[in-house]
Amino acid sequence: QSNVTIYGIVDTGFIKKSGQDVKMGENVSSRLGFRGVEDLGGGVKATFQLENWFEPATGQAKSLDDPDRTWDGAANVGLKSDTWGAVRLGRVNELTTETIRKFDPFYQYGVANMIYGTQRMLHIDNTIRYDSPNWSGFHFGATYSLGGNTDKDSAEGTPIYTAKEAGNGYDNDGYGIMLGYDNGPLALVGNWSRLADSKDSTVWNLGAAYRFGDAKVELVYQQTKDNGWAVGKERSWKSTDFLDWVGKNSTENWAGVDTLKEKQWLLGLEWKLGPGRLNASAQWMEVEANGGNVSDKDIYKYAVGYTYDLSKRTSLYGNLAYTDYEDEEVARVFGDVEDGTYGVQVGITHKF
Amino acid sequence: QSNVTIYGIVDTGFIKKSGQDVKMGENVSSRLGFRGVEDLGGGVKATFQLENWFEPATGQAKSLDDPDRTWDGAANVGLKSDTWGAVRLGRVNELTTETIRKFDPFYQYGVANMIYGTQRMLHIDNTIRYDSPNWSGFHFGATYSLGGNTDKDSAEGTPIYTAKEAGNGYDNDGYGIMLGYDNGPLALVGNWSRLADSKDSTVWNLGAAYRFGDAKVELVYQQTKDNGWAVGKERSWKSTDFLDWVGKNSTENWAGVDTLKEKQWLLGLEWKLGPGRLNASAQWMEVEANGGNVSDKDIYKYAVGYTYDLSKRTSLYGNLAYTDYEDEEVARVFGDVEDGTYGVQVGITHKF
Amino acid sequence: QSNVTIYGIVDTGFIKKSGQDVKMGENVSSRLGFRGVEDLGGGVKATFQLENWFEPATGQAKSLDDPDRTWDGAANVGLKSDTWGAVRLGRVNELTTETIRKFDPFYQYGVANMIYGTQRMLHIDNTIRYDSPNWSGFHFGATYSLGGNTDKDSAEGTPIYTAKEAGNGYDNDGYGIMLGYDNGPLALVGNWSRLADSKDSTVWNLGAAYRFGDAKVELVYQQTKDNGWAVGKERSWKSTDFLDWVGKNSTENWAGVDTLKEKQWLLGLEWKLGPGRLNASAQWMEVEANGGNVSDKDIYKYAVGYTYDLSKRTSLYGNLAYTDYEDEEVARVFGDVEDGTYGVQVGITHKF
Repeated sequence: QSNVTIYGIVDTGFIKKSGQDVKMGENVSSRLGFRGVEDLGGGVKATFQLENWFEPATGQAKSLDDPDRTWDGAANVGLKSDTWGAVRLGRVNELTTETIRKFDPFYQYGVANMIYGTQRMLHIDNTIRYDSPNWSGFHFGATYSLGGNTDKDSAEGTPIYTAKEAGNGYDNDGYGIMLGYDNGPLALVGNWSRLADSKDSTVWNLGAAYRFGDAKVELVYQQTKDNGWAVGKERSWKSTDFLDWVGKNSTENWAGVDTLKEKQWLLGLEWKLGPGRLNASAQWMEVEANGGNVSDKDIYKYAVGYTYDLSKRTSLYGNLAYTDYEDEEVARVFGDVEDGTYGVQVGITHKF
Repeated sequence: QSNVTIYGIVDTGFIKKSGQDVKMGENVSSRLGFRGVEDLGGGVKATFQLENWFEPATGQAKSLDDPDRTWDGAANVGLKSDTWGAVRLGRVNELTTETIRKFDPFYQYGVANMIYGTQRMLHIDNTIRYDSPNWSGFHFGATYSLGGNTDKDSAEGTPIYTAKEAGNGYDNDGYGIMLGYDNGPLALVGNWSRLADSKDSTVWNLGAAYRFGDAKVELVYQQTKDNGWAVGKERSWKSTDFLDWVGKNSTENWAGVDTLKEKQWLLGLEWKLGPGRLNASAQWMEVEANGGNVSDKDIYKYAVGYTYDLSKRTSLYGNLAYTDYEDEEVARVFGDVEDGTYGVQVGITHKF
Repeated sequence: QSNVTIYGIVDTGFIKKSGQDVKMGENVSSRLGFRGVEDLGGGVKATFQLENWFEPATGQAKSLDDPDRTWDGAANVGLKSDTWGAVRLGRVNELTTETIRKFDPFYQYGVANMIYGTQRMLHIDNTIRYDSPNWSGFHFGATYSLGGNTDKDSAEGTPIYTAKEAGNGYDNDGYGIMLGYDNGPLALVGNWSRLADSKDSTVWNLGAAYRFGDAKVELVYQQTKDNGWAVGKERSWKSTDFLDWVGKNSTENWAGVDTLKEKQWLLGLEWKLGPGRLNASAQWMEVEANGGNVSDKDIYKYAVGYTYDLSKRTSLYGNLAYTDYEDEEVARVFGDVEDGTYGVQVGITHKF
């Protein structure tokens, strides 16, 4: 038993967004994990991690579209060394998302989050991931993910094969590379990545943070080129549900859109205030839709929140955000229903 | 790891009921759980609980109609105090069921259980639950559960929305309140509750128990008004399967039934005898079906069982029950197939 | 917490087989388990075991055709004694597979495995299993598994009922018996078994191993009579997918085949060499298809591999195998796509 550490988070509370009922939901992602480290000698260690994600409001698996995924949060094994870094194989965190979210005061959690690009993926399958050691604050990482089977014999009958037959050819392998620096008051990060089976969609971003006293100021730029697929699934903005909905509200031709390009800026502030932390952010995203008859859309979002620490492991929070979408259609692309969407949430986070 | 306690139960054995083959199945519900308590100071503690329920005979999730529900038994986080009690958020035990089953010698487990009302629900979602401290034996509790989304925009396309479109309007919030007393030889409880998304169905009950020496005598009355829905699902007695079956056996019009009213009495005895416990109960339930052409039905059930303790954590059991249903139709409402149904089971319960 | 031991394996790597892309996959089956033993006194103990199997490359449940099966690897409770052995109830290892695989140098894992008979089943449901104590190396075991419900009333509407209506009558109970000897340089095993709901299909086998110095030589004979069903499911060689595929490649009438008979020999070598173990095997299997118009097929397989131990708990491995199928059709019966299929894999196994 000494070989295994059990850890986790349970977070839930109440969320109210424009055009939706009050519902129970989380801020920080709830999880139960098992991990271990074995010393192999010579400065080398073996590692493993298994992480189940769930929704406390219902006890359900987090990824309802893939409930088979018991270990949605992580399932990997690897070797690590203080000298040459760490290698992991299996299901791991996606590097671009993992590192840029640290520059969002809300860590991409809850109603106040940094707007998710439509190619955002928290965890990725079939991946070998490398993380360098930390050299005076400088560090880098890389991932390589095997895409869908490109051999006709064995892929036959699968969704990927069907898409290929139709000439979509979206079954590319995935890549990611991260360069980071974090030393003294300054932190910087840059990422470039392409998800597997994404029709060669790409995401790149840059983040910078500067600490002075109890405050930290953050700046993020991220650019997403979304060709409508990611990890073998069509993106929701290309789905029949979305197009049905748009059809009811608009004469514009979203059905012909084949690519979304999203350019987003975020300015953030974290401030240690009293027994907790005040967070605030302002965002601007521009969405360009190509291939249809949709003009460019602007999105502005403003958020503020306070996290009150009852202890190191338990805290209460309240977050408030307002998102000004150019119209309801682009709101729907990002999971909201009204062009002016406010969101408010209160809840509790407990770590163990 | 000291933050987490692992606990659970594995129980299985053999069950034979009239009109069914011998099968392997449990008495006490099998589960694996993780829970923890953190002392926040000032007499306040943070708590969490995650509980997976399963069927040992197959290793399958307990709720096969909802296998996404990894943490079927519990998924919640909260705060508690010796002074003001405990508050939990998430998926919790339903108060009415949790408290009345303590007045059934068989704890509503296995073939000898107190007949389940058709609105019985062990655990409920999207709930905030309060439990008072214990004041010289007196205590109370309350739950509030958020129902299905009542906003047309966001509910569109869901089963709840469809039902609303048809004018069913069953998407109410849920409530529950419990008053209890347990001191010396006497224990009393009273509950009133309404499940979420149940078309305003209700359950209320009263339980009383008196201990003298090694024996305890228990009396329960429960009344269920079932409008055909609970937690967003149609009850099985309204299902096509049920109606198909009734159609083969009867000219009565069960298809038109829209409400069931169930009034049930249970008299129970628990007796510490030798290295274990002898349990016995006698029950009477009256079922009134409204809206169709079905007369009132009486159900009588008699049960006896013995649990032999190998240790505090492990026991063997044997239970025997006979249920005298008015006819096969009402037997089918309660999951049996013959109007005179006997049930016998033997097995082993291990707690850890 | 002292009542529960957490244990497991995480294994993944890269696999390349003829006619398929490189993919990420495991050798040793990855799992997370919880088990415990309670001393009841008098030399008797209570035991339980729960084991989740998963695929680290994706974090998914192992049995994707039955993702409800949270505890795919084991879910059982029992009693054991040094005097009279052990009894377990629930989901347990299938005895024939569990014991014969010890005579395959590759333990029926990965690309180099002993060819799986089409009635191979790792774990079985609804089973009572007995394992004798070890008397100077001699030991035996037996299992009895409850088959699908044979009562018409309760089975109605289920796949098993439908098959019975059609006169298939495959809903037999399952049995298994094992006799073993393991003392000094010699190990022997013999099994006979019939899976539940298999239309009375049978498997029997014999294994022998002899150790001298750092080497062990093994010999296995196994005979499978497969009537097209196992544990209530049609075997994949009878599936529409298989028949569709055969139809594209052959004029022979596989559709009429109702029984497969598989006779297989395996000669194995395990050799402790350096900081690890060299494994090698040679196999011959003859497949007779009855009821259609398919001639007997021969399969030859040769495999070699090396496992390098980084510690007692962590190792790296590389395995290489070549399978010479008589034709593509019989390759497809055993999950491959080319008549000459090579397989190569490298990876890491970590136990905890």
